This record gives sequence, structure tokens and C-alpha cells, in this order.
Amino acid sequence: MTEPCFLTAAAASRAIADGRLTSEALVRSCLERIETRDAAVKAWLHLDPRAAIAAAREVDKRPRISRLHGLPFGVKDMIDTADMPTTHNSANWQGHRPARDAACVGVVRALGAVILGKTDTVEFAAAGRRAATRHPMNPAHSPGGSSSGSGAAVGDGQVSLAFGTQTGGSLIRPASFNGIYALKPTWGTVSREGAKIYANSLDTIGWYGRSVEDLVLVAEAFRLDGVGHEPAPAPRALRIGLCRTPYWSRIEPGGERAFALAAERLTRAGVAVEDLVLPDAFGGLFEAQDTIMFGEGRAAFLDELLIQGARLGRDFVDRAENAKGITPDRMIAAHDLAAECRRAFSALFERVDAVLAPASPGEAPHGLQNTGDHVFNAMWTLLHGPCLSIPCTLGPGGLPVGIQLVGPRYADARLLSIAAALAPVIDAETAAQS
Amino acid sequence: MTEPCFLTAAAASRAIADGRLTSEALVRSCLERIETRDAAVKAWLHLDPRAAIAAAREVDKRPRISRLHGLPFGVKDMIDTADMPTTHNSANWQGHRPARDAACVGVVRALGAVILGKTDTVEFAAAGRRAATRHPMNPAHSPGGSSSGSGAAVGDGQVSLAFGTQTGGSLIRPASFNGIYALKPTWGTVSREGAKIYANSLDTIGWYGRSVEDLVLVAEAFRLDGVGHEPAPAPRALRIGLCRTPYWSRIEPGGERAFALAAERLTRAGVAVEDLVLPDAFGGLFEAQDTIMFGEGRAAFLDELLIQGARLGRDFVDRAENAKGITPDRMIAAHDLAAECRRAFSALFERVDAVLAPASPGEAPHGLQNTGDHVFNAMWTLLHGPCLSIPCTLGPGGLPVGIQLVGPRYADARLLSIAAALAPVIDAETAAQS
Repeated sequence: MTEPCFLTAAAASRAIADGRLTSEALVRSCLERIETRDAAVKAWLHLDPRAAIAAAREVDKRPRISRLHGLPFGVKDMIDTADMPTTHNSANWQGHRPARDAACVGVVRALGAVILGKTDTVEFAAAGRRAATRHPMNPAHSPGGSSSGSGAAVGDGQVSLAFGTQTGGSLIRPASFNGIYALKPTWGTVSREGAKIYANSLDTIGWYGRSVEDLVLVAEAFRLDGVGHEPAPAPRALRIGLCRTPYWSRIEPGGERAFALAAERLTRAGVAVEDLVLPDAFGGLFEAQDTIMFGEGRAAFLDELLIQGARLGRDFVDRAENAKGITPDRMIAAHDLAAECRRAFSALFERVDAVLAPASPGEAPHGLQNTGDHVFNAMWTLLHGPCLSIPCTLGPGGLPVGIQLVGPRYADARLLSIAAALAPVIDAETAAQS
Repeated sequence: MTEPCFLTAAAASRAIADGRLTSEALVRSCLERIETRDAAVKAWLHLDPRAAIAAAREVDKRPRISRLHGLPFGVKDMIDTADMPTTHNSANWQGHRPARDAACVGVVRALGAVILGKTDTVEFAAAGRRAATRHPMNPAHSPGGSSSGSGAAVGDGQVSLAFGTQTGGSLIRPASFNGIYALKPTWGTVSREGAKIYANSLDTIGWYGRSVEDLVLVAEAFRLDGVGHEPAPAPRALRIGLCRTPYWSRIEPGGERAFALAAERLTRAGVAVEDLVLPDAFGGLFEAQDTIMFGEGRAAFLDELLIQGARLGRDFVDRAENAKGITPDRMIAAHDLAAECRRAFSALFERVDAVLAPASPGEAPHGLQNTGDHVFNAMWTLLHGPCLSIPCTLGPGGLPVGIQLVGPRYADARLLSIAAALAPVIDAETAAQS
């Protein structure tokens, strides 16, 4: 039998349901994997093996009330946990211990999940200090950010589910780099309570898994509309819009290869693919996302500025002090453009069932300072709809590159069922394993 | 000299700056007023006089770095405070003590404000259990909600500044009922971190004061765009749109009188007033706000549902379980209508400088169960722009009724300076005192 730590969450869930696996055995397997790999990968900021085993034992005694029963989760360390520190990877927050779990942690814990530990993150999931996490397949490279530890831990077989967040591209980009699956659900459908605010119009809690079914387990927990009730489509019945986005000039060889391969595989599987060129207005979305991210970031870091004073890093001082000089007029224009494009994007789904787009420019970048470019993520975050990353291939440097499927607002369930149909086609390398 | 507790915040701030008043003396005066009045008004859920006096003494020793130096604040008890419980007026949260101040509390504390205590609120600022607070002028009546305690405490001379929140009309409506001033700033300009989420697209932190200048003190602390740099307009140079809103059929005699009186006083002062009829699309905003409030409320209370189980009140179970059956299509339509009307509303400000609208249907309602109707607030909350409540008159029942000025998104500073020019005209009863 596969070491339990390498199972998909869905497979582990079935094994637990059937009595073939206990939560304790699964958690122990994950902890062993982490012990072997942590010196190289450094995905975790907090890990208390004894407490995790104790929590798993408790869950093993309780009745199973959900498919998450007994499954371990990594939690990005800017999401509150009542029984573990929450440091935001900030020097000023070391030892901070919230009094209560963030809403997302509370939900999965109540359903029987075991919080394994806290994963490293770019400071406040925004800027400043980078995670110490290294790419599991090549320690000279970043695993991406800001959900660095969650992406690397899932990619490296240390845990099969982990929470991350996305304001620019912090969830989908690391999924692409680490060869794993991720769902950024529709903005507003999962409570962001207890996760550090950066830009409230954009920040979205999401999760990593090793298969589409893994993503569904968590989507069920959050009761996303229609999850579990969407019929599984046949690939031949699907129409996929190939969207190079207005930012295609920034694609790299790895990303270009993944996009072309995915399109080719879909075509071969009988999926109706067509090039989808977005209306001109969409060309302004990257800048609009940047304006809103920095413009709302002013309020998000003002208390830090006043409380930490000179201890606060320059990136956050700049945000709180509006170093970019963002004006009210630019904020209004950015919000109005986003609203216009959200509506126009919804209308495109009369012609296509999902949009296929790059998940990252290419492979994970060299060094830890550069966590990658969010140019292929920012516009989708601003559009508020679901994004789902699927592994696709390896780039010229031998590291994974994925693609993403994008849907209109609130169509998370539909996107998950389309992804379930198409992942075995797109994810040629790893589909056989899951 | 007036008892310090009855001073406006701006007057107290000047007295502290000039050395005529200490924070300790001001806090002691507030505490005496509370001791006299608390049995009747019940505005506070937590008050620790010794700790408040100690905090004031500490502030008196420190250099003055802002106009908030030494000023006491009430904080609605669904906003986190590190040194006081935060109960959300929920039976399940008694004794809960957050590890950190909410961002808004952190900001004013860092600037020298003294947190006097926590004020009563409708449970989670949403539904369920009502505040025990009574109207200061008539204990048979509600002071409004959900910011019940903050509104009543400021109205009753117990404190001159207090934080509240608005998702429907929870900030402006109690201001109208209690004869005080309030600012609901533009959505997104003040961090909502550490305040309970109800509907993230709507929830807005705001504050009460006893004059427009009081509101400015706090707006300065949050560095709202342009505050302190907007020239004070002359009333004769202003054009005010009189907006009865699409919901005028729900006005009561008190609200009608306040609206008519305000218009009459403005006209007499030489302000150019004109009737402003909103485009037809605005007629859908009340329902759209309701859809978004309940639709986003699903996610907000899911962790409560799973963790509290049978201990959770019916109102919150209904929200988490989507008892209203809100569909994705309705959510999308509501968001898109809001976006369309936000843009259209901004365009109206080529013709007018501010919009005058009812702040509540009329006077505070009888009994504590009904905290008042938010029909004249919900649409403005959804439009995201600033709303500023000004006392105007007494209704037929002898209780206060205010009006509100409304501005376009991000024009908070401009609205504050317009209100400073017009409040002495509109607030005929109390303007002389402040």
C-alpha cells in the first residue's frame, strides 16, 4: 500500500470511512514525511507532532460526520488558529496566539479535520519577508508565494490538504509551481474571518489538494452552491475557451508549453476548444487589481504602522502611507472597470463552459526572493469567479507548470465538475496516480 | 464649566491640548455620568472604571501626537479588544477575550485614545438577541440597533465618541434616534479587521460623535483621503439634492418633518436645493442589499452553525442554511445592480454637491425588540459612499429625528466639510451647544 501521506485526500477519506486507515496513522505518516523532508523544504512555521497525534486520536474516537473526518490540513500562517501561534511570518508577531480559530479553520475542524500545523507565508500574505520554504523538487527555487508553505507541503506529500489565500495570485501560482490542484472559490462564498486582511475586495481563502475530488471535499464543507449536485459532464459535451489573456506577452516557455499541451489534449479527447479573445476593456484589469490591492492595503496596514512604528517593514509602511499616490478617482475607475468586466465575463459563458488560461507564466523562479509573477492571476482574482489549477506538464527546467480553469461568479460547483471531467485529460503525468 | 462628559470630542480635545483638562478628569466625568445613568440606559456590556482611569493616567503622561489624545471611546461589542471581553452579545461568546485589538481600536489607541468600555449590540450586529439598551430620553423605546449601546451612550452624554458598524442601517439609524452625529465612511477605507463579519460587501466600521468636528477627528486618525485639506464651503455656494428615495412611502411623520425642516432651513440659508429623483434602477437596491446581506451571511455564520450546533439562535441557523433560498443568479444580479447604481450615483454629483435623505423613517420605535427599519439606509450602504447623520428635530413623540447627507464613493472629506458648513443650519436645536 502507498504510504498514507501520499494518498489523495479523497482516497484517504475513503480508507478512513472503510476502516482501512485511522486518522492517527495518516497523521503519523505525514509527520514522518515532514521529518524526512523538512530540512530541505521548510514548509512549516509551527508543527507540534504530539498535539497533532493527540488531535487525530480524538477524531478517531468520534463519529464520522463528513468526508473530511480524520484528514490533516496545513494552514497558512496568516490564518488564525486558537491552539497554535499565528505569526504572519512577521518578526513583530512572533508568539502571537489568537483566542479563536479563523472561520475556515473552525468549519473544517468541526467536521473532523485535524489541523496539522501552520505553513510558512510571505509576510502578511502580502510583501516584506519571504517564506523560508524551498521548492520540493529543486531547493534553489521558490515554491511560489504567498501561500509558499501550503503549496510546497501538498506538493511534497507532507499533507494532502492545505489552506492558502489569494489577493493577487498567491494560491493558483504556487499550485502551478508545485504540480498540485487548487481552488480559489468565488469571492465572498467562504468567510475570510480570522485571516489577515490585505485588500478586502480581493482576498479569498482557498485550498490545495492532490486531485479535483480533494478540492470537492473541502468545497462540500463550505457548502458552495450546488456542490455534489452538478452532473458530471462528458468531455465531448464541453466547450472550452482558450484564453491567452491580454498579458500573453509575459508568458514563458514553460507556460506556453502547458497551455498548448492542455489545448492539444483537450482537442484529442473530443472537447470543443475555441480561442477566446476578451473584450478590450479586460486589458485594464491588471492595473485595476494593482490599484485596488494597494489602495485597500492602505487601511489594512495602518494599525501596524501606528503600533509597530519603526519596526514595520518598508513594504508595509509604503502601503499604509500610500507611497504609490493612489487617488480616489483611480480607485473608483478600478472598481467600476472590475464591475463592468465581471458582467461581461459572465455573458461569455453562453458560448463556453469554462475558460482555460495560464496559471503562471512558467516554472517556479530561481531564488526565494522572487515568488513569481501574478500577471496571469490578478485579473481573475479581481473578477471574483472561481479559478481551479490543474497540473499539466514540466517546463524546460524540469519543474511543474499547470494551467487554470476559470468560471463565472458563483459557478464553483459547475467548475469543479468540469475539472473532474477534464483533469484526467490535462494532467497526463499525474492523473494515473490519483 | 460644562461637565467634561458633555463636551463634544473636539472641545474636549482642545481643552486637553491647552492643559485645561486631563484625560483622567474627562474619563472620570464620563464614568460618573454612566454611574448615574446606567441603570436606566444600559449602554455598556463591559466597563472597568479602574482600568479606564489607569489608561487615562498613562495617556496623560505621554506626549500628545493626535487630536484624539486622551479622548475616551465606546466600542461596539462585536469589535475585538485585547484587554476587554468581546461577546457579540451572544450567549455562546460570554467571556471571550481576543488576543488583539481590532484594527480600528488599534489605530485610535495608538493615537492616544482611551477605550472606555464595550457597548451593547444586537447579537453579532445582525439579528437574534437584542441589546438591553434603552433610549436615553424614553426607556420604553429602543435606541435603535444594531449599534444600540454606542448610539445611546453618545446621545446620553456618557462618552463623546464611539465605534459602531453598518451592514443595513446600524450606524446612521441610531444616530437619528439618539440626536447625534455619525459617519459611515466609504466601504473599504477603514479596516474591518477584528470586527465580526456579517456581509463582507456591506459591513462598514463607522463612528458617532456630538458634532461634525468630532467625526473629523476620527476621520483624520484613519487618514481618509483629503481630510483636513478640503476647503470649508459657504452654504450659499452649495447645491443639495433632496432625495426622498424610492422608499418614501415608508416615511413616518417624524421623518417627514425632519426632511421638510432640513430643506426649509437650507433654503433659508441660501443653499441651492433641488429635488433629486433617482433613476428607476435604484428602486431595486433595497432588495439587492437584502439579497447580498443574507447571501453573504451564509458564509459568515457557517462556523457558528457547526461549532455551536443547537446553541445557535434560529436567526443565525436560517442565515447559515440559506433559509431564504438565495440563488447564485440573484447574488449576481444584486452585485451587478449595485455596481451599475454606484456608477450612476457618482455621475449625479456633477449637478449636486451632496444628497440629503432621510436617516430613519421617523423616531425610535416602541419596545426593545424592534430596533427600527433600515429602509432608508440599506441602499446607501450598498452604494458604498459616505453617509453622515445630522440631528434635525424632534418627532411627534418627542424623540429626536435626524437626516443624512450622502456623498459619492471616496468623497468622505468633501462630505465632512459640506456637513460642517450645513450642520449649524440643519441642527437648529443643538447647534448652539456645540
